[in-house]
Amino acid sequence: MRISRKQARDGLTPAPLFVLVEPQMGENIGATARAMLNFGVAGLRLVRPRDGWPNPKAAATASGASIVIDQTDVFASLDEAIADCQYVLATTARRRELPTAVLTPDAAAAALKERIAAGLRCAVLFGGERNGLASDDVARADAIVSIPVNPAFASLNLAHAALIVAYEWSRAAGDMEIDAPATTPPAGREDLHRLIEHLEAELDAAGYFFPLEKKPGMARNLRAAISRAGFTEPEIRTLRGVIKALARSGDREEV
Amino acid sequence: MRISRKQARDGLTPAPLFVLVEPQMGENIGATARAMLNFGVAGLRLVRPRDGWPNPKAAATASGASIVIDQTDVFASLDEAIADCQYVLATTARRRELPTAVLTPDAAAAALKERIAAGLRCAVLFGGERNGLASDDVARADAIVSIPVNPAFASLNLAHAALIVAYEWSRAAGDMEIDAPATTPPAGREDLHRLIEHLEAELDAAGYFFPLEKKPGMARNLRAAISRAGFTEPEIRTLRGVIKALARSGDREEV
Repeated sequence: MRISRKQARDGLTPAPLFVLVEPQMGENIGATARAMLNFGVAGLRLVRPRDGWPNPKAAATASGASIVIDQTDVFASLDEAIADCQYVLATTARRRELPTAVLTPDAAAAALKERIAAGLRCAVLFGGERNGLASDDVARADAIVSIPVNPAFASLNLAHAALIVAYEWSRAAGDMEIDAPATTPPAGREDLHRLIEHLEAELDAAGYFFPLEKKPGMARNLRAAISRAGFTEPEIRTLRGVIKALARSGDREEV
Repeated sequence: MRISRKQARDGLTPAPLFVLVEPQMGENIGATARAMLNFGVAGLRLVRPRDGWPNPKAAATASGASIVIDQTDVFASLDEAIADCQYVLATTARRRELPTAVLTPDAAAAALKERIAAGLRCAVLFGGERNGLASDDVARADAIVSIPVNPAFASLNLAHAALIVAYEWSRAAGDMEIDAPATTPPAGREDLHRLIEHLEAELDAAGYFFPLEKKPGMARNLRAAISRAGFTEPEIRTLRGVIKALARSGDREEV
């Protein structure tokens, strides 16, 4: 799906830059770009991408996130890539012998939001597929972001790590929406009551409540089951039609 | 990285099943399996996978999540795939004309956690790459999960959608950890004070504070900059060595 640059930018607010340090596979760079734009992050920088840049595989995997891919900047060193950044986070899975603070992704997103709101240019660093960030790279960061994972299967795909950080960023920034339909609310209790009365009347006519002394309990159980479902007004109309149709069919059979 | 089944299972608690309905690309099935296991979800079911099953591309992309891939069950219909499930969520991006409740991923994870704690078998449905879930599939769900995305670039990759739900599930379940090192705390103020005194003494000797009436302000600014950094005790030792080395080198130059 191709979208216009204007469309893709609509509603994008200032966001952190994502910096991939020595990424290897174009597919992962493209998947990262797509994941970023899904969550409103458009600025991508690459440090020494293994297969050069531009990379046709990255463009293919980006699935329309061309405003990210087309404007990706490439740098010869991490220092150049973050020269203009005022707050830098490093994502890493492995233990580090560094005194740098370690943040969960949601805490990192909150830290980024605070600084971006104050006008600071922020970057999040991601290491390459093989080894992640080198300790020398991590030492350049203000804090570490660590994604809590299954300790027995902790190796996160590069684009997946970027996706989690972008997702938490968009949650913190609060500018994404779920495309929730204007949900039809449950019907009022009067409609529900009429449905149940209708059903009971037809069941009475059909001789369902037998023996008769058990009717109060049977009716109460039916009412409880039907009340719990949260039927909407259109659904109640449908169900009354259903009851009518079944009762009519019963009449026919008795003829 | 291959890990043993036992390792990968260690620490896995009951989790929702993920059901992919008519998935197309093996790569996406594999990436989904990897993302699931990263966040402690191991049960994968497929409904009519386009390229059959097993799928070598899925196994390759799963990057070691073979306990997920090897135990994936395949079904001919969604109804069979969820026959034993007691609570079913449907992930969908598009608007639906259904009165089904729409949950954000974190609300969905909380709903899953509550039901799984009560012993219910839960499933989360994901549609295929082209069109997502059909409305007929969604009508089988207790609630819809909608991932809040950039409205101008809303098309989420299948594995990315699964990743977000698995990530939120693991956050709600609370059984994942970040591998945070035992962070060295900042040094006590006495160590910091001695560092600053040492620095000031050497700067005095070097004639740095000039003119002398400006010394209090200059010293105060230096103290503020150094105090803010949160140096640890080993870092302070390092810095005192640095000061000593610089001062010695200054002595030499004057000879």
